[in-house]
Amino acid sequence: MEGVDHLAHERSKAQFDVDEMKIVWAGSRHSFEVSDRISRLVASDPVFRKDNRTMLARKDLFKNTLRKAAHAWKRIIDLRLTEEEAKTLRFFVDEPAYTDLHWGMFLPAIQGQGTDEQQEKWLPLAYKMQIIGCYAQTELGHGSNVQGLETTATFDPQKDEFIINSPTLTSSKWWPGGLGKISTHAVVYARLITDGQDHGVHGFIVQLRSLDDHLPLPGITVGDIGMKFGSGAYNSMDNGVLRFDNVRIPRDQMLMRVSQVTREGKYMQSNVPRQLVYGTMVFVRKTIVSDASCALSRAVCIATRYSAVRRQFGSQKGGVETQVIDYKTQQSRLFPLLASAYAFRFVGEWLSWLYTDVTQRLQAKDFATLPEAHACTAGLKSLTTSATADAIEECRKLCGGHGYLSSSGLPELFAVYVPACTYEGDNIVLLLQVARFLVKTVSQLVSGKKPVGTTAYLGRVELLMQSRPNVQKAEDWLQPSVIVEVFEARATRMSVACAKNVSKFPSLEEGFAELSADLVEAAVAHCQLIVVSKFIEKLQQVIPGKGVKEQLLNLCYIYALFLLHKHLGDFVSTGCITPKQASLANDQLRSLYSQVRPNAVALVDAFNYTDHYLSSVLGRYDGNVYQNLYDEAWKDPLNESVVPDGYHEYVRPLLTQQLRNARL
Amino acid sequence: MEGVDHLAHERSKAQFDVDEMKIVWAGSRHSFEVSDRISRLVASDPVFRKDNRTMLARKDLFKNTLRKAAHAWKRIIDLRLTEEEAKTLRFFVDEPAYTDLHWGMFLPAIQGQGTDEQQEKWLPLAYKMQIIGCYAQTELGHGSNVQGLETTATFDPQKDEFIINSPTLTSSKWWPGGLGKISTHAVVYARLITDGQDHGVHGFIVQLRSLDDHLPLPGITVGDIGMKFGSGAYNSMDNGVLRFDNVRIPRDQMLMRVSQVTREGKYMQSNVPRQLVYGTMVFVRKTIVSDASCALSRAVCIATRYSAVRRQFGSQKGGVETQVIDYKTQQSRLFPLLASAYAFRFVGEWLSWLYTDVTQRLQAKDFATLPEAHACTAGLKSLTTSATADAIEECRKLCGGHGYLSSSGLPELFAVYVPACTYEGDNIVLLLQVARFLVKTVSQLVSGKKPVGTTAYLGRVELLMQSRPNVQKAEDWLQPSVIVEVFEARATRMSVACAKNVSKFPSLEEGFAELSADLVEAAVAHCQLIVVSKFIEKLQQVIPGKGVKEQLLNLCYIYALFLLHKHLGDFVSTGCITPKQASLANDQLRSLYSQVRPNAVALVDAFNYTDHYLSSVLGRYDGNVYQNLYDEAWKDPLNESVVPDGYHEYVRPLLTQQLRNARL
Ligand SMILES: Cc1cc2nc3c(=O)[nH]c(=O)nc-3n(C[C@H](O)[C@H](O)[C@H](O)COP(=O)(O)OP(=O)(O)OC[C@H]3O[C@@H](n4cnc5c(N)ncnc54)[C@H](O)[C@@H]3O)c2cc1C
Ligand SMILES: Cc1cc2nc3c(=O)[nH]c(=O)nc-3n(C[C@H](O)[C@H](O)[C@H](O)COP(=O)(O)OP(=O)(O)OC[C@H]3O[C@@H](n4cnc5c(N)ncnc54)[C@H](O)[C@@H]3O)c2cc1C
Repeated sequence: MEGVDHLAHERSKAQFDVDEMKIVWAGSRHSFEVSDRISRLVASDPVFRKDNRTMLARKDLFKNTLRKAAHAWKRIIDLRLTEEEAKTLRFFVDEPAYTDLHWGMFLPAIQGQGTDEQQEKWLPLAYKMQIIGCYAQTELGHGSNVQGLETTATFDPQKDEFIINSPTLTSSKWWPGGLGKISTHAVVYARLITDGQDHGVHGFIVQLRSLDDHLPLPGITVGDIGMKFGSGAYNSMDNGVLRFDNVRIPRDQMLMRVSQVTREGKYMQSNVPRQLVYGTMVFVRKTIVSDASCALSRAVCIATRYSAVRRQFGSQKGGVETQVIDYKTQQSRLFPLLASAYAFRFVGEWLSWLYTDVTQRLQAKDFATLPEAHACTAGLKSLTTSATADAIEECRKLCGGHGYLSSSGLPELFAVYVPACTYEGDNIVLLLQVARFLVKTVSQLVSGKKPVGTTAYLGRVELLMQSRPNVQKAEDWLQPSVIVEVFEARATRMSVACAKNVSKFPSLEEGFAELSADLVEAAVAHCQLIVVSKFIEKLQQVIPGKGVKEQLLNLCYIYALFLLHKHLGDFVSTGCITPKQASLANDQLRSLYSQVRPNAVALVDAFNYTDHYLSSVLGRYDGNVYQNLYDEAWKDPLNESVVPDGYHEYVRPLLTQQLRNARL
Repeated sequence: MEGVDHLAHERSKAQFDVDEMKIVWAGSRHSFEVSDRISRLVASDPVFRKDNRTMLARKDLFKNTLRKAAHAWKRIIDLRLTEEEAKTLRFFVDEPAYTDLHWGMFLPAIQGQGTDEQQEKWLPLAYKMQIIGCYAQTELGHGSNVQGLETTATFDPQKDEFIINSPTLTSSKWWPGGLGKISTHAVVYARLITDGQDHGVHGFIVQLRSLDDHLPLPGITVGDIGMKFGSGAYNSMDNGVLRFDNVRIPRDQMLMRVSQVTREGKYMQSNVPRQLVYGTMVFVRKTIVSDASCALSRAVCIATRYSAVRRQFGSQKGGVETQVIDYKTQQSRLFPLLASAYAFRFVGEWLSWLYTDVTQRLQAKDFATLPEAHACTAGLKSLTTSATADAIEECRKLCGGHGYLSSSGLPELFAVYVPACTYEGDNIVLLLQVARFLVKTVSQLVSGKKPVGTTAYLGRVELLMQSRPNVQKAEDWLQPSVIVEVFEARATRMSVACAKNVSKFPSLEEGFAELSADLVEAAVAHCQLIVVSKFIEKLQQVIPGKGVKEQLLNLCYIYALFLLHKHLGDFVSTGCITPKQASLANDQLRSLYSQVRPNAVALVDAFNYTDHYLSSVLGRYDGNVYQNLYDEAWKDPLNESVVPDGYHEYVRPLLTQQLRNARL
């Protein structure tokens, strides 16, 4: 059976040019070429094998990750990879590792918050990995509320040094990735204190371990915080705990781009605008959104292929059974997730544009659009990560019993993905920020302040409070303008209702607190509108390739109408659509599912994932699921012996006992 | 800090008698006493420790489980525990083990499907654990579709034996718990073939391993199917793979209560009604529903206590911060789950009554209510397990970053729980069965057939198609009759709409297939109505204890109004309630949350869980979270050495390298 493509029939049914779709998915021909080449490079290298991950005990798992990280670095150097290629390689190695934080947080923190001299000193060391850094912000007692951090950095003008200290148990740094066992340095966030005065939280570069023998420096207690969700999964990362017992660092290791402490101990603001932090935030969140589309598409790829392989019920007179992908329930659970994968991909692409825009505006000292950009990225981070986490688990369920096996790849994908809902801002806390921004925007409308960017639609509030879509038959839903208007109307009405209700409370703060659950829902409505709009905007571009645009259009409608159905209460109770129109949308959705059905396998092939990256027996490209499930099973350590360890001590005595005093 | 109750203040706020609530939760004073005594017994026994589970490699984990199972058995015998106590003990040992299937599936299968002689022969052996059995139904190729199983049992009249065979790869038995390494016997489901004729799937008792040396008998290939979701979790179970190469068993090992094969090879039905299987099904599902309430309440207990300990934001002028349980978003996510735990508990209790009822009717050969009872239990199994799986993950998210640590207990609880959505009937497949039953019931209304049991309300279809609740202000929602009517109206209208739409298709089957996603939603509406009604019925009983009933009433309203909000689209688009009434329900919900808030910790204390059972640092009874998180961390194997294994090979070379040809 080796070499047979069990999904060939499915592939032959596709009504579009898969190779062109691969380019669309990748973002450009260049991106496709890089990711295709590097993913194969990783897949063909035995050091990067992943299939035994879940069977390794923690120490072995961790050591194996160190090995991969070193090998990855060696490949990057030996092959003289570009920065883009190096990043792509780390991505396809696909294992949380200390290097993620070194490249993803430590370096950007210094770039964003360090002065030019600091950058000149530290960046080359970090770029060459002569030091390894992490990002130590969260403490045992404070995560979301960064302003509540307790670690102190007290300036000692006598020695021109800061004294970093952990005054309480809850001030222990807790969670930073790469901290536990590997990092030699950290950007540590601590309350800056000069002359008895607390200036709030600032960043400091602190060396943690000796570069000679890797032992923690005096005054530093550091270790790993222990096992996390899943086997394998995030346990290859050494999230760490860190305590400081009055550790001294030179003054010039405070990150001083925005504010400074002088030799005399004077605290000062530089002329660099504080808003700079927004740039970094948009950057990090854009990465998180595009990671969401990767994780989601990966789960969808597995579930789609397996749903085409799996047959259950429906055989007529001993004939072959129905592929489960042909059941409408399976389609109505799976295809909206397929559509979401594409939707998140495109909104991620748009965020790259937004990042460029924000950067340029910052350079031009134009801060006007920053709050909107900030709210927008916060909301999109929250929306896409929550949806992706749920979707991975739904994909697992879509695979029935076999989805519960580690070899399906889905349990580990879930376990490694879910913290994205929590880190870089707890998703609910982020949505509350979005909601506040929306309420503020709405209340400023009367004073004539014009909403910008993704909130521009609120400028048409009067129209949108009244609008009714012209939908009389199912096909009427297949109009981008109708879809956008309905989503705008819903988001507007929910924001306006919130603003109105909040204002009824004695104070705004009370109103926000009391109505926060409603506010979160309004924020979600706004964010979903953004995703829908950006998908539609994408389709207004020229997209070459036979049938490619048609497929994307179908997916776009599925995404929108699925949301409409899921949040029907919002749409109907705000009067944006009638129950009759809702039911027409549902009819249209079913017909869209039928149109996607023959293209489903090809639509996931377009992600161009190697079997190595998927690491799922159920998601194999060739669909040869059963033989491989069977073969995988025998690799479990439990199968090393026929009679299991423990049988003689703990099972045999039961089987051979004579029961005397049992009541049973 | 040892011995200090960090949650004492919370407990002092409770407005009801917690001890009386414990009795209500347990179901009776007797049940409370048993579960309280046995749970402490387990908690105090060092053999039953669970805290190192997630750090063990598979073989060690498995061996440890064997040890616990043997120890549990020894305690059961030594202490001469009753059957109820023994079951309770196994429950609190709280680790999937081969004994679950032995007691929970192997024995019941023989009881339900074996003749009297077969029971006399096999049950005593099984009761004394002189044989250990499992339930081998599912195959690599077939789970949901039991009728599609491929294993054959061909009668050989010459030798008076059945030949059990696995003709294809996909016919390999796959998944049975306890099969992989331990079971000596199995009830194997196979196609019965006599004289070339296929009589469909029947059960057979097959010995798998020698009772002398535990080696598989000739012709039998058996092993473990490998790692499953999570670390620890379900990996203590040896779910197995099994192949038969023409294995012979005596004729009297076919389970012959319902149908038989005679010495001559004649296939015959006995006079025992086939419907008997329904009894077992109701029994198994009642257990699953009550397990759901346990798993859910456990997660809710952890999240509630931690939400009362955790403080984040909102400090005024350096004062103490807000407990996150005081945020309305946290309440609106957590309290409905608390309410669901109670709701599922009571519906589980009611299922015990239903089981007795069904058993009595079966004895009296009254089969009239069986289809309804069957649909009802299928639906409740699906509803409660899906809701519980989602709720556990939501509770984990409610704990922020720390919920992601294994020591929070939540990751493992999720990983071990989720397969309940798949085994004993895939939840979607079950809902489709419920929906078919509903549509049938609706279409038979015209012919005057009176719906029974949980579908009785459909008899008032005309009224319910018209009814409008009399709700003009928020408090109007606080009437059981209003709640029930609204839920009945919604369920009725959705079922009727489905029946109507299905009938528009050329054939019923086509209609069912095409509209299956809508059908599933109608089934959910029906099942939610059952849970709401049974909660309300429970509250019509006398419930002693200061404030107990008041608290339960609040939870009941929360459960109902939360569902109403979640499925608002259903309610509003079918015209069951107006948007205005929906908004009043929302207002009422907020005020109910405020009423539950001071009682929240006491309401989870009422579950009476030991810290051993919870196995969660975040859920500790004393709320001493931070010190224990900190102490737990250091136990990780990675912390055994300061410099990690692998540093010298894989990290030091990076730090000390001279880069020459890098492009970076
Ligand atoms: C895998 C992983 C990796 C991480 N890596 C790093 C790292 O490298 N460096 C680092 O510094 N940190 C890291 N973190 C920490 C992470 O940033 C924090 O966990 C995150 O910010 C959430 O904060 P918290 O844990 O304090 O949650 P909490 O704020 O305690 O959340 C608990 C609950 O309270 C709710 N809540 C909190 N505040 C409010 C409010 N104002 N209104 C309403 N509800 C509220 C939340 O919604 C949540 O339900 C990591 C975490 C994880 C899980
Ligand atoms: C932890 C665990 C323990 C188990 N223990 C045992 C055991 O002890 N003994 C034993 O015999 N088995 C056991 N099983 C197997 C279990 O009973 C099956 O996995 C279960 O019945 C689901 O069947 P499946 O895996 O074939 O799912 P499938 O039927 O393949 O489901 C795949 C997808 O197809 C969909 N689907 C299937 N049919 C239809 C349809 N007609 N219409 C619409 N959609 C459909 C499902 O909804 C699902 O989304 C266990 C499984 C697990 C995970």
